[in-house]
Amino acid sequence: MPVLDTIDQPVLLLNEAIARANLKRMADKVAAAGVRFRPHFKTHQSAEIGQWFRDFGVETITVSSVEMAEYFAEAGWQDILIAFSVNIRQIERIQALAQRIHLSVLVENEEAVTALIGLADVHLDVWVKVDVGNHRTGLDWMELGGITKICKAVQHHANLTLRGLLTHSGNTYHSDGVAGVVRTFRDGVERLKRVRSALEEQGMTGLEISVGDTPGCSLCDDFSGIDELRPGNFIFYDAQQAAIGACSPEQIAVAVACPIVALHPERAEVVVYGGAIHLSKDSLEVDSKVSFGLPVLPEGNGWGKPLQNCIIRSLSQEHGVLQFTDGKIPPLHIGDLVIIMPAHSCLTVQVMRRYLTLDGKWIETMNH
Amino acid sequence: MPVLDTIDQPVLLLNEAIARANLKRMADKVAAAGVRFRPHFKTHQSAEIGQWFRDFGVETITVSSVEMAEYFAEAGWQDILIAFSVNIRQIERIQALAQRIHLSVLVENEEAVTALIGLADVHLDVWVKVDVGNHRTGLDWMELGGITKICKAVQHHANLTLRGLLTHSGNTYHSDGVAGVVRTFRDGVERLKRVRSALEEQGMTGLEISVGDTPGCSLCDDFSGIDELRPGNFIFYDAQQAAIGACSPEQIAVAVACPIVALHPERAEVVVYGGAIHLSKDSLEVDSKVSFGLPVLPEGNGWGKPLQNCIIRSLSQEHGVLQFTDGKIPPLHIGDLVIIMPAHSCLTVQVMRRYLTLDGKWIETMNH
Repeated sequence: MPVLDTIDQPVLLLNEAIARANLKRMADKVAAAGVRFRPHFKTHQSAEIGQWFRDFGVETITVSSVEMAEYFAEAGWQDILIAFSVNIRQIERIQALAQRIHLSVLVENEEAVTALIGLADVHLDVWVKVDVGNHRTGLDWMELGGITKICKAVQHHANLTLRGLLTHSGNTYHSDGVAGVVRTFRDGVERLKRVRSALEEQGMTGLEISVGDTPGCSLCDDFSGIDELRPGNFIFYDAQQAAIGACSPEQIAVAVACPIVALHPERAEVVVYGGAIHLSKDSLEVDSKVSFGLPVLPEGNGWGKPLQNCIIRSLSQEHGVLQFTDGKIPPLHIGDLVIIMPAHSCLTVQVMRRYLTLDGKWIETMNH
Repeated sequence: MPVLDTIDQPVLLLNEAIARANLKRMADKVAAAGVRFRPHFKTHQSAEIGQWFRDFGVETITVSSVEMAEYFAEAGWQDILIAFSVNIRQIERIQALAQRIHLSVLVENEEAVTALIGLADVHLDVWVKVDVGNHRTGLDWMELGGITKICKAVQHHANLTLRGLLTHSGNTYHSDGVAGVVRTFRDGVERLKRVRSALEEQGMTGLEISVGDTPGCSLCDDFSGIDELRPGNFIFYDAQQAAIGACSPEQIAVAVACPIVALHPERAEVVVYGGAIHLSKDSLEVDSKVSFGLPVLPEGNGWGKPLQNCIIRSLSQEHGVLQFTDGKIPPLHIGDLVIIMPAHSCLTVQVMRRYLTLDGKWIETMNH
């Protein structure tokens, strides 16, 4: 039976061919630049999908939590960076991980360094988290005094290796167009290079630079000065990435199939079984309107192009409401499927917890 | 060890005493009004918490999906209403459920009625979903012709019992103040009564009226004309309900404990381990600013009052950023806990998937 015919409730579909092509494109690009690839696994959260990266020689990965590091260590990954500032309440789990694998962590304050120093019998690589303009967290790149102090505190201890400076240029997500993304991304790298030069003048040599947001890595061709790249979302992309210009809608590899349960032609709306618990409540702007994803229709054994003049105007717990902004509903029927490309695939994967590939295979994540 | 000391990553805390008091208050109120209580279990999603309702004589419940009905049927509930318009792709699972328990479903179109008629050897109670102004879904209350047609189609078949008219006045969530909520709630009831009168004139007698949104059920004291009430969120409430005035912050029974990982006094911000995958991306307005929940601090073995002048200005996958809008951070330290009362508890429960009570007991949900 065709896979779409088997669906009776919201299901996260995965077009494996698109995802593998996205992976190959990024892996080839990073390899061509001679940079170490440390892809972020927080997007797919799946041991099975993680194996696809082995085909491209990937042995170093990034995760966003201790829990995720434990999951991927169990799946055989031996070199993991937890790209989240050390949470000192988890120091014992960090120690246990460092006993099993080559573990890298992030610090941005003395409390974290002190906690790491206290760990006996384990060795950790340490990156200093620098804020180059995103202002979520990290040490401000202009606060050289603070950065130097943390670097020296790390360097002082034999069980810690100071590896370098790391940033997440999350502000590329808010940059103005492709040129804006590239400028924000390169500005971030240049700021890290300036910090590194200042540290070198104080005798701290050999420090590396690690960056990696999907818009920047997708759109920028100049990776000079970068030692390590950590994009994650690119494996699937999503509607937000398409809106930024980091991918085309055809490169989005995941979408949630949602059965139609009601038609309201008088207001050009279609109600689907598919809500915030299936898509997450993240959104994007489409034609100056908030939309909780990009609706498409089934096509063959997969899905077609985004519907024109169609937004998901609201999501409640289980309901999604599609609105056709030109007032015209295409010929749809109760029981048909609408397929929704998520606003933010990482969060959709997290709520859905497993994938169904277009050839009918279930793939689990750490949360299933 | 005190329960808060055991926490090393984001945990959904449940103050059982508050939740049980919320339950008692609503159960007593509904009983005093002589109305059937059919609480919605989509908020807690837990077989164990469901048992608390037995103490108040509850035997009839509401759920939001076939999957949830299957879960609670397994947990021993024998009279379940799926308050979501029949999804004809799940008709076989609906049939299987109706073979095990007394099942009620919702219809709003002929396709659904046709699918139900096709079910052999089972009996179902059927409610007609009416839209009294929320405009999410349902038959418009003014479209008497359409409503009559559906009612007659249901009535015509021996395996279906037409029970009555059902609405979800979700628009109470957007009403202006307490008086606005009460007016919207009562307007909805009056509209259903008018529809019922029109149906009675056509010989359809004995139809019931089922309503139930938490703001309306919490704030309205006049339940006249109502046969069944289906509130759900009231068991925990949340920051959105407090903002509406449906509860006080002291009545919120769940909150996510989040370790502090960074302090940024220069911009009066605190970064916690606790993001969209722990709280969901739902939000509310606090002092005209978007906030992804209400931050509080630990107090004794629980939590205190909402922090003044403090919002959660952003949530990414794992990070939450608290901003003190008066520029002053209270004395907080790396590794301390901030406790966040969720914007929307139903979605927070869905992403967190289990609770830790303040006396250290884990309670599972259907998703764990």
